[in-house]
Amino acid sequence: MSTDPLVVFTPSGKRGRFAIGTPVLTAARQLGVDLDSVCGGRGICSKCQISPGYGEFSKHGVTVHQDALSDWNAVEERYDQKRGLKPGRRLGCQAKIMGDVVIDVPPESQVHKQVVRKAASARVIEMDPATRLYFVEVEEADMHEPTGDFERLKRALKSQWEIDDIRADLSLLSKLQPVLRKGKFQVTVALHRGHADAAAQILEIWPGLHEGGLFGLAIDLGSTTVAAHLTDLETGEVKASSGIMNPQIRFGEDLMSRVSYSMMNPGGDKEMTAAVRDALNLLAEEIAKEAGIDAKLIVETVFVCNPVMHHLLLGIDPVELGQAPFALATSGSLTLGAKELDLTAVNPRAQVYVLPCIAGHVGADCAAVALSEEPGKSEDLALIVDVGTNAEILLGDKTRVLACSSPTGPAFEGAQISSGQRAAPGAIEAIRIDPVTKEPRFRVIGSDKWSDDDGFTEEVGDGGITGICGSGIIEAVAEMRMAGLLDDSGLIGSAAATGTARMIEDGRTHSYLVHDGSATGGPVITVTQGDIRAIQLAKSALYAGARLLMDERGVDKVDRVVLAGAFGAHISPLHAMVLGMIPDVPLDKVTSAGNAAGTGARIALCNVAARREIERVVGQITKVETAIEPKFQEHFVAANAIPHKTDPFPELAKIVTLPNPSFNTHGDGSDGGRRKRRRG
Amino acid sequence: MSTDPLVVFTPSGKRGRFAIGTPVLTAARQLGVDLDSVCGGRGICSKCQISPGYGEFSKHGVTVHQDALSDWNAVEERYDQKRGLKPGRRLGCQAKIMGDVVIDVPPESQVHKQVVRKAASARVIEMDPATRLYFVEVEEADMHEPTGDFERLKRALKSQWEIDDIRADLSLLSKLQPVLRKGKFQVTVALHRGHADAAAQILEIWPGLHEGGLFGLAIDLGSTTVAAHLTDLETGEVKASSGIMNPQIRFGEDLMSRVSYSMMNPGGDKEMTAAVRDALNLLAEEIAKEAGIDAKLIVETVFVCNPVMHHLLLGIDPVELGQAPFALATSGSLTLGAKELDLTAVNPRAQVYVLPCIAGHVGADCAAVALSEEPGKSEDLALIVDVGTNAEILLGDKTRVLACSSPTGPAFEGAQISSGQRAAPGAIEAIRIDPVTKEPRFRVIGSDKWSDDDGFTEEVGDGGITGICGSGIIEAVAEMRMAGLLDDSGLIGSAAATGTARMIEDGRTHSYLVHDGSATGGPVITVTQGDIRAIQLAKSALYAGARLLMDERGVDKVDRVVLAGAFGAHISPLHAMVLGMIPDVPLDKVTSAGNAAGTGARIALCNVAARREIERVVGQITKVETAIEPKFQEHFVAANAIPHKTDPFPELAKIVTLPNPSFNTHGDGSDGGRRKRRRG
Repeated sequence: MSTDPLVVFTPSGKRGRFAIGTPVLTAARQLGVDLDSVCGGRGICSKCQISPGYGEFSKHGVTVHQDALSDWNAVEERYDQKRGLKPGRRLGCQAKIMGDVVIDVPPESQVHKQVVRKAASARVIEMDPATRLYFVEVEEADMHEPTGDFERLKRALKSQWEIDDIRADLSLLSKLQPVLRKGKFQVTVALHRGHADAAAQILEIWPGLHEGGLFGLAIDLGSTTVAAHLTDLETGEVKASSGIMNPQIRFGEDLMSRVSYSMMNPGGDKEMTAAVRDALNLLAEEIAKEAGIDAKLIVETVFVCNPVMHHLLLGIDPVELGQAPFALATSGSLTLGAKELDLTAVNPRAQVYVLPCIAGHVGADCAAVALSEEPGKSEDLALIVDVGTNAEILLGDKTRVLACSSPTGPAFEGAQISSGQRAAPGAIEAIRIDPVTKEPRFRVIGSDKWSDDDGFTEEVGDGGITGICGSGIIEAVAEMRMAGLLDDSGLIGSAAATGTARMIEDGRTHSYLVHDGSATGGPVITVTQGDIRAIQLAKSALYAGARLLMDERGVDKVDRVVLAGAFGAHISPLHAMVLGMIPDVPLDKVTSAGNAAGTGARIALCNVAARREIERVVGQITKVETAIEPKFQEHFVAANAIPHKTDPFPELAKIVTLPNPSFNTHGDGSDGGRRKRRRG
Repeated sequence: MSTDPLVVFTPSGKRGRFAIGTPVLTAARQLGVDLDSVCGGRGICSKCQISPGYGEFSKHGVTVHQDALSDWNAVEERYDQKRGLKPGRRLGCQAKIMGDVVIDVPPESQVHKQVVRKAASARVIEMDPATRLYFVEVEEADMHEPTGDFERLKRALKSQWEIDDIRADLSLLSKLQPVLRKGKFQVTVALHRGHADAAAQILEIWPGLHEGGLFGLAIDLGSTTVAAHLTDLETGEVKASSGIMNPQIRFGEDLMSRVSYSMMNPGGDKEMTAAVRDALNLLAEEIAKEAGIDAKLIVETVFVCNPVMHHLLLGIDPVELGQAPFALATSGSLTLGAKELDLTAVNPRAQVYVLPCIAGHVGADCAAVALSEEPGKSEDLALIVDVGTNAEILLGDKTRVLACSSPTGPAFEGAQISSGQRAAPGAIEAIRIDPVTKEPRFRVIGSDKWSDDDGFTEEVGDGGITGICGSGIIEAVAEMRMAGLLDDSGLIGSAAATGTARMIEDGRTHSYLVHDGSATGGPVITVTQGDIRAIQLAKSALYAGARLLMDERGVDKVDRVVLAGAFGAHISPLHAMVLGMIPDVPLDKVTSAGNAAGTGARIALCNVAARREIERVVGQITKVETAIEPKFQEHFVAANAIPHKTDPFPELAKIVTLPNPSFNTHGDGSDGGRRKRRRG
């Protein structure tokens, strides 16, 4: 009927004519406009708020009169008094169409609202979580039609929300009857549907309309740290982020030593599994407390992790991952009950999604980076490096993506470095060495001041300098090279050769003194020849992995480099390139993706379609196994040196002004490549 | 090609022509002949044994020569030496078709073998269990194709058995890798598929070919006793049957008192749930021990039970079942993990199927009776009565089936009877009273001799007579009526009125002395006026339930009566009819179905299609609620008397020769109907 009022929704632009008296929510649903509702139009959830526009809308060819919608009604008045409606807002289920009208759906009323992932990125996460709330009115029990309460609840969800094939476990069924009666047969259920074609599972039920929210955890389970983001599953907002140390460290610093622990100690894998699960419960409790929510409102958890952590989380002995052919027990994604992982802190029916692993050494964390950084959608050839104890490396563009992992070891995290420590207050995280005086200046975590700034001593003091962390040691080695304190092979020169008293004799080698706090009882922080060797091993492994993918792809350069990982965020691209950690690209083509694995976990938490997407993508990634590729060894050995390079880096040319020294008089400068490498 | 050899399979009669060299198993599969194989034709499982026939088969128009099959081969020789093949048997996967042949598939080689349910019945159970064994060869792990072991197992099941959509829980995944390697990547899996369209779940995995069998438990969980049948899921054979007392008896003898216990004691339902689950674990362990199998080979369990036991098993507070409208938390069938019910004695991944409930008082046990007795397929109108503490009653034929439950109370099980006891050795189970001398003779459980037989004293002795059980008290009351010791109203006559010194004064009433063991320290067993009243209450409730269904159906007689329940098997139809427990039908139209609920459980255990069938049937049964039907009360009161009847029972006319007495001089003979009834 062309004489019916015209309704135009913004921002979608969807339009149609509706009979006078049609509720706005009904019109929106018929047009497929994204307008939320938990209560199904009963005027109690307030999710369907809309903003009608009045006046002339020449763009839409509509003039909207003041009486285009039905009058403000008692339901809206009650809601406004109780909770408050923003000026100009109406409830879409109450306001009825009386004339031509333009209706704006504000972002917070959209189901598929988009959440900006982070300020620096244009990418957004579209909200489409696996678990959503539904308010339903259930028929009361009737002796003459003796179906069970659960069967009537299912019937209500089918008739009121068109949701079929609904299941509930015994713990839910055991609370169903009292909740239904407390809510006078009106209840809100949290329904989880992990797959489009799978049954929907009732995770929780509340009497009446539940307004306490619904939350999920995105967890990046690393070898060293466990980081979690508590996310509002309705808005996508991160309510709190928190991290703890992985308690498995006491069984072994790196992954290989944990696999060894399991091999050597019967039941050792069970100990490690119990340790990490305990820590996860602690983390969930703490993060919920921090956000001020009940941890039982956490109904979903997404995990990303490397293969060894993957198996240890799941309770699978990782022993096969310690030896060729590095077979995973399972590589596909997993959808589990949280109770299967003994995650008792969260909702007892909470669901867990674990991203797929790519290969025996390339885990769900790498898959998460691929989900976040989308190399398969890149126009130019991107090298993505997630730097940690084990480096995950992705190389690709729209045509093809390759992945491998490389056993860098923990040096990049400050471990196995003489003055090394984890990134924590007091750690030297940045360092500059004057190319003329060879004097260092540095910054420690916890202060923005450089050590030669006014007030540094007051703010930090000798006692506040405790060691040197991963980014600090990388900068230190690169700066030493640029200041002419190291030669190509990585050998540290003597005091005589380098002309600085900061060179200390250390057996047959030399160490560079960064800071001497001994006068006030603090540490003496030096960079030793051993430290240089450890960094050389780590950077060679990283570089060799990247080169191997480039070989496989048949290229000898990449268009851009993305440094991912919490640590990646702090690496100076300039110093990384001086060291030769990554292939040469223009400096402005090196970006940091922050904790890309964690972001990938958040995407999978907020958008169920993204789970299918990464499962599909992982199947298409070409896996390259570094451990069996002879060329990896070649690249590794070849990458050991720290060559003096100024081209094609004008930035470097400005800084690196000294001649290229050579201290290789002891003949022990290039043994690194033949040292036994450790996988971790 | 019409010149290919003709192959005829018996008993199916399926026939076809196959190229020379085709294995018999392949031919059978192509023709859809039911020939089993677990190993998929690898000559190791021996399930595909066949018997070729030789000579002239005029019926089939085939002459079979001695060279119709390929020669006995090394695989068959090895199998024969190791395990032994019956004479004339070949392995269908090894024997190849060389000429026209007639091949018999012996019953034990059929997948859908039929198991005769019991000797007395023509009905059979077709084997089609939800869980079956599959032998597979899995590709070995390969570094260049780094999928997980589980993914390769799934691929093997898809390519070798055409089974898709396979899942496994973490406990299975955690044992997958060692088992695969122990079996050199050849394994047997037990796959469960509860629904045709549901994912198949791997319940167990064994290295190589598993030959230890696969078992299931059919459990009839009654208020008083728990009975289990351990069944071979490959053959359908019942390996052992066992029963234990329901430990919930300590919380209340009947169901209503257990519901009350839960109402009065916070957490009382949890106590009762834990008690019954503990007992089930004990029962599973004992029955496995009795059958000489590992209880971890029990991979399926089917439960039938009344609604209160149903809820208490599942961990659901039964409080709503104690008050109108008697709402079930869930009425549908349930497929669960055994661990959800804390059934730790069986396989950790064992699956549980619980039959659907019909209504708040008509449980899964009644559904099981309907599955076993199939009233909906009956040509004549059948009344099926499952006698227990609560009677489940079904009335129906092909056109319509009705069901109700009736609160008979525990008198029929010997409880609340002065000398009553449960059916156990020493209990009087049958009794006859001489109509002339009024002297009793009886039989006790544990002996086939009557008390006046030679050798009874030697075999049983005074000490061996301990009380009177349900069937004994029913016979005693009926015999007393037939001997003229009771009048119509149920009043016991005095010694003077009845002319026997066995009548003892008991306050204002009289008791009949059945047995006096006091001289040797044994019990004095009498039937008191209170016992008569208790039996009158129980039989009135039973009869009133049946009448209510007959009213609803619009009939005043039924064509036949089936007495079900373990107790039903021991009731004498004659005595039941004298008492008026059941409507009058010719005596030869009263049959016993034995433990029909248990049989229904076994059917659901052995045949997955039967589960869908009973789910469908339950939806079509008309439920009648006795508790709210005023006519139930009327029928109950009217059924209290024990009228003297000889017609239409010529059998009774022969026995009941005495005149119909009347002792109703105290005016207290018909108070039963107004006593408060108990639901249980």
